[in-house]
Amino acid sequence: MAQGGEFDLIRRHFSRPVPAPFLGVGDDCALLPIREGHQLAVSTDMLLEGRHFLPQSDPVDLGHKALAVNLSDLAAMGARPLGCTLALGLPYVDDTWLQGFAQGFHALADAAHCPLLGGDTTRSGQGMVLCVTVLGEVRPELALRRDAARVGDDVWVSGALGAADIALRWLQGQLPDPSGRLAPLRSALERPQPRLALGQGLCGLAHAAIDISDGLLQDLGHVLAASGCAARIWFDAIPVHPALQGLAPDLVQHAVLAGGDAYELCFTAPVGQRAHIEALGQRLGVALTRIGSLEPGAGWQVLDADGRPMVVRQAGFDHFAASEQDAPPGVAP
Amino acid sequence: MAQGGEFDLIRRHFSRPVPAPFLGVGDDCALLPIREGHQLAVSTDMLLEGRHFLPQSDPVDLGHKALAVNLSDLAAMGARPLGCTLALGLPYVDDTWLQGFAQGFHALADAAHCPLLGGDTTRSGQGMVLCVTVLGEVRPELALRRDAARVGDDVWVSGALGAADIALRWLQGQLPDPSGRLAPLRSALERPQPRLALGQGLCGLAHAAIDISDGLLQDLGHVLAASGCAARIWFDAIPVHPALQGLAPDLVQHAVLAGGDAYELCFTAPVGQRAHIEALGQRLGVALTRIGSLEPGAGWQVLDADGRPMVVRQAGFDHFAASEQDAPPGVAP
Repeated sequence: MAQGGEFDLIRRHFSRPVPAPFLGVGDDCALLPIREGHQLAVSTDMLLEGRHFLPQSDPVDLGHKALAVNLSDLAAMGARPLGCTLALGLPYVDDTWLQGFAQGFHALADAAHCPLLGGDTTRSGQGMVLCVTVLGEVRPELALRRDAARVGDDVWVSGALGAADIALRWLQGQLPDPSGRLAPLRSALERPQPRLALGQGLCGLAHAAIDISDGLLQDLGHVLAASGCAARIWFDAIPVHPALQGLAPDLVQHAVLAGGDAYELCFTAPVGQRAHIEALGQRLGVALTRIGSLEPGAGWQVLDADGRPMVVRQAGFDHFAASEQDAPPGVAP
Repeated sequence: MAQGGEFDLIRRHFSRPVPAPFLGVGDDCALLPIREGHQLAVSTDMLLEGRHFLPQSDPVDLGHKALAVNLSDLAAMGARPLGCTLALGLPYVDDTWLQGFAQGFHALADAAHCPLLGGDTTRSGQGMVLCVTVLGEVRPELALRRDAARVGDDVWVSGALGAADIALRWLQGQLPDPSGRLAPLRSALERPQPRLALGQGLCGLAHAAIDISDGLLQDLGHVLAASGCAARIWFDAIPVHPALQGLAPDLVQHAVLAGGDAYELCFTAPVGQRAHIEALGQRLGVALTRIGSLEPGAGWQVLDADGRPMVVRQAGFDHFAASEQDAPPGVAP
């Protein structure tokens, strides 16, 4: 079985310096200069049946999500979508399934102005395999790169956290729900809304951003490592999805700090931009919440209501360290 | 089991009109305008273990081939590579395998000036899955689109055909080789060389081009359908790889007309460009051979030495119609 460190091993083999005007492996998107003042942002994500989704997943939702998780990477870069490609490996051809998948995919592609430009279809002797690549455009000086966070920045998060993680546990039968109040959380897991308008609006206001796919602390950790700073996070400030009220505190803590599939943006911005960021959130109708600040050092610390460091059980999802039990479909990004 | 027509069904669900300046599903690459006089060319290909390659494939060759088949699509568009992304689904992490794969991938990426810009790695509960997306650049008026062939054009092919198909049969134990002369053909199958310089050189000389991945007649058929014309192909003019001499005529005919994985270019050009095209071939050291011409009508006809239409057994590979036996690993593009 693979160990956590083996994920770094993959990185070591594939992360190589790219020519100077490019941004390569290790951010939400790769960046390529395409013309004076414009960069192309590129991101690719692979979704595997049994790993990221279940065979019985609703095809409309799956079509939506396959594109949404990629658009979320463009959002985290502040990029405007240009178009996408789709590679499909299918064990068999089912007209009804394809129609649903295409419907979900195209509906989001239309809404995001991100037309499907091309792709590849092949028969899979294994399960279903989806690979989407999105292309976007961003002004180089405004791209929300992971390495651009600065000591003194506020740490912000969009929306509310925890819903997708709890929905997954409920779907897997790990959580009883006699009152029926968890069912509405499914849409958070199955139809995440990429924060494209927010990402573009943050260009020029925020320094760095990342989308929360592997868990708040793990994804924030990537920003901290790339930018060379530390974060203090105030646990009580983190916006928790209202439907999580009344659940066991341990469960809520894990869902909020380490739950994957949130596809909200975590970003850092100078203190002087607070008013502009709040105005942007109001204009877009998106809750934007300050949850901490950046300091010299490395890594994150989560503080409780009394300002004491909290013990955090698990920081997030490691694609290779986790066993099959730890990595239920839907959690792995 | 899926039928051949179901491949069209997939196309029906995913081929939709894209905004006017774009070129969408149905060519070697999608095209997006990126600046005055420049278009971005994008292509994506998925390779599945057991379908496109065997688990025991040499990882260096596999790294090479995963990128090569995508670069071949850029070549067929006349595009200059800009960069690529790689999504990897791996059942386990093997340092030696990864090192070999990365070596083969990066060596070709360096040679083609196509740096790896980003990607995604995830654990596959199934077999190995590779998905590469390449980005390139081409001047819009010079792109070698499938729909640009014209009645009266010559039909050309680069290199010599049949080697990859015969190599695959030999590797699968279908062909005895007591003299040991088939073994050198492996490199044609395992290390195809994308015709990038040729593709770029043909811009302004040729009208349409396609790379031969599914078989000469099937791929040429895509050009004919998109351009609305017919082709007469002179069988004896088709350049056959010299190592195929002495093999059964049926075998050679199938390898040359329907054998996949050739990654040579088939292109059409006005008669007036013959001298320029021959000079280009000499400059690049690539054999370029005229194998037929385009006429009004639809479809292709293969003529024997006496000018009589030949009966052709199988036109090429259909990803969904073929059974597992018909579709050995390495044939399906």
